[in-house]
Amino acid sequence: MESAIDAHLQCPRTRTRRVGDAFQPPYPAYSARAPQTMTQVVMAYFGVQVHQDVDRAQDAFVRMSSLFKLPDGPGHRDTVRFADANGAETLMAIAYWGDPLQFQRWRDSAEVSEWWKSDERLHEGVGYFREVLMPRDMQYETAYSSPHHPEGVGVVMGGMSGEILEHGYWGSMRDRIPLSQTDTMTPSGGLCVRADDDKRRVMVFGHQNLAVIRSGQDWTDTIREERRLYVEEIEPTLRAGMEFLRDQGADVGCYSNRYVRHVDGDGQPIEKSFGISHWASLAHLERWAESHETHLTIFGKFLRYVPELPNLRLYHEVAVFDSNAQGYEYIACRPGTGLMPR
Amino acid sequence: MESAIDAHLQCPRTRTRRVGDAFQPPYPAYSARAPQTMTQVVMAYFGVQVHQDVDRAQDAFVRMSSLFKLPDGPGHRDTVRFADANGAETLMAIAYWGDPLQFQRWRDSAEVSEWWKSDERLHEGVGYFREVLMPRDMQYETAYSSPHHPEGVGVVMGGMSGEILEHGYWGSMRDRIPLSQTDTMTPSGGLCVRADDDKRRVMVFGHQNLAVIRSGQDWTDTIREERRLYVEEIEPTLRAGMEFLRDQGADVGCYSNRYVRHVDGDGQPIEKSFGISHWASLAHLERWAESHETHLTIFGKFLRYVPELPNLRLYHEVAVFDSNAQGYEYIACRPGTGLMPR
Repeated sequence: MESAIDAHLQCPRTRTRRVGDAFQPPYPAYSARAPQTMTQVVMAYFGVQVHQDVDRAQDAFVRMSSLFKLPDGPGHRDTVRFADANGAETLMAIAYWGDPLQFQRWRDSAEVSEWWKSDERLHEGVGYFREVLMPRDMQYETAYSSPHHPEGVGVVMGGMSGEILEHGYWGSMRDRIPLSQTDTMTPSGGLCVRADDDKRRVMVFGHQNLAVIRSGQDWTDTIREERRLYVEEIEPTLRAGMEFLRDQGADVGCYSNRYVRHVDGDGQPIEKSFGISHWASLAHLERWAESHETHLTIFGKFLRYVPELPNLRLYHEVAVFDSNAQGYEYIACRPGTGLMPR
Repeated sequence: MESAIDAHLQCPRTRTRRVGDAFQPPYPAYSARAPQTMTQVVMAYFGVQVHQDVDRAQDAFVRMSSLFKLPDGPGHRDTVRFADANGAETLMAIAYWGDPLQFQRWRDSAEVSEWWKSDERLHEGVGYFREVLMPRDMQYETAYSSPHHPEGVGVVMGGMSGEILEHGYWGSMRDRIPLSQTDTMTPSGGLCVRADDDKRRVMVFGHQNLAVIRSGQDWTDTIREERRLYVEEIEPTLRAGMEFLRDQGADVGCYSNRYVRHVDGDGQPIEKSFGISHWASLAHLERWAESHETHLTIFGKFLRYVPELPNLRLYHEVAVFDSNAQGYEYIACRPGTGLMPR
C-alpha cells in the first residue's frame, strides 16, 4: 500500500488527511505516476460542433485531427462524440502533452496557428472550440481500477503506482491531490468572457482553482451478467447524473458537463465513455458527488456490485488550475457551448 | 451560522476541518449546548430482557424504573422496546445525568446498589443489563433538525445553538466533536470480558475511543404525504440498514446495534424510534455510513425528500469514550446481548 501522492510530491503537511495510515480501502485502486521532470501537463479538448450537416462536421474534424500528427503533436489522444446542452452533436478530440513547451511549439507552429486564426473557420457551417488546461504536478490526481489500462493523462505520465491508500472514501479525491497537503484550493474570481465584435470568436478566461474532472468507464471486457449489470443497472443511473449536471448543473456550481462516447477511426462507437465537467471549485464537485442522489446511487450501486464487476474498468482524473493555466476558445459555436455564456 | 463546537470548547487546531468557513449546509441543523460547568455527562442504558414471560419482564422493568425516582436520579429518561440480535424482546430505559458525581451517588445508594447486587436478580426469569457511558465535553456531539425538540443528552444539556456550519457533508460528525480539533480518536485495545464462575454476571470492559451513536427520528407531527414518505419510503430502508448492522455488523466494526421504538407509560408504541450502536472506532462508523449501500440510500432519500418533510424530526448524538468511562454489565442475559460475546 502506498500513498496516491508520489514520493517526490510529498511535503510537510499543514492540512490533515481524512483517514489514518491504517485505513484499508474496500477494493484496490492505482494512481498514474509521472517522471519527476514532468512538472506540468497539458489536457486539451478540441471540438467540432455540428450545425446542420453532419458530413461537413466529420470532414472538418478529420482536417483538424490531421494537425495532431505534425511535429510536437500530443503524446496521447482520444476521439469522442456527444450531444451538448443545446442538443448539438459534437465531435471532440482530447489530446495530452507531457510538456507545455512542446504543446506551445505545436500550437504556435505556422500550420496550426494559421488554421486556427483563419477566417475560413468562421464560414464552414460548423463550430470549433479548443479548451486547454495545464495543471502543475501538485494540482492533479488520477485513480484507476486496473493498473494495466491507463487512460487520459495517465498514458502520457507513463507509469503506475501500486495499490494506493487514499480512495474509497468521500474526500479521497482531495486527499490524492498533492496540493491538499498545504492548501484548501479555495476559488477566487469568476469566469470572464471576451468576444469579437461579431461574436464569432469568443474567449473565456477561467479563475483560480476552477476544477475539472474526467471520469470514465470501459466495459469492453465485461461479459454476461457483468455486462448486464453495467448496461442495465449502472449506466442508466450514471446517465441520469450526467444529464442533471448538463441541464441543471449551474445550481450546484457545475459550469459544463459532457457525457461522451469514444469512437473508433471510422467514427463508430466503442465501449468506453466518460463524463468531463468544469466546476467553480473542488468543494463544489465534492458537495455534488457526496450529496446528490444520482451520484450517491451510482456510488452505492458500484460498491454493491464491485465484486461482480471484475472486468469493468473505471478511472478518473481531477485537477484544479491556476487562472492563467486555462484557456477556452470558441469559433462560431452556439451560446452555451462549453463555458460560453448562454 | 455558528460552529457546532461550542465557543468554550474551541482550541488551537492541529487538525483541519473538511470544509471551509464559507461552506453553506444544504438545510439547517442545530447542536445542543451545555453550561461550561457540565464537563462530563452520563448516558446509561438499563435493560430487561424477556426470557419466556413478557408480563414478568414488564413487572421487573417497572420495579427497576422506580429506582430512577430516587434522589440523584437522572435528569432525563426515555423508555423503549426492541428485539435484539437473538430475537429476545427487551425493555430499555435510557437515562441521562449532567453530572457523573450525581450519577455515582445514585448508583451507589443503598437501594440501587443492593437491588443490582442482589442474588434475586439472577432468578427472576428475566435478564438485566446496564451499560454506562460517560463522555467528557470534548468527546461528544449532537445534531438536531429542529431547535425546539431536544432529545437524549440534549435534554440534560439544556440549551440549543443557532444554525450550525458543520453538517450535511460526510465527515461532519467528526468535525462536530470538539476533540477532532487536535485528535484522530484512533482506537486502542479491545473488548475485555470478565464473567463470574457461573457466567450469570458478565462484565465487558470497553477500549479507548470506542464510539457510540444514537440516531433517532420522530414522525409524530408528520401528516398525509409526508407521513407516507417516511413510513413507506424511508423507514423500510432505515430498517434494512439497522438489521444489517444487528446481524452482520461485526464485519464492519459494529459491536452491537439496536433499533428501538419509544413506548409511553402504558408500554404502547409512540411515533419515535432510534438506532443505538457501538463501534470499534469513529472511523469504522464513518466508513459504514459513507459506503454501505443501505445507509447511502437512506441519506440519498433523505436529501431528496427533505423539502417535503418539514415535520419529520431527526437527531443524533455521537461520542467516543475513554476506556475507563464505559461499563457494560449483564445479569442472566443471553450470549450476544449488547457487547457480551456470543
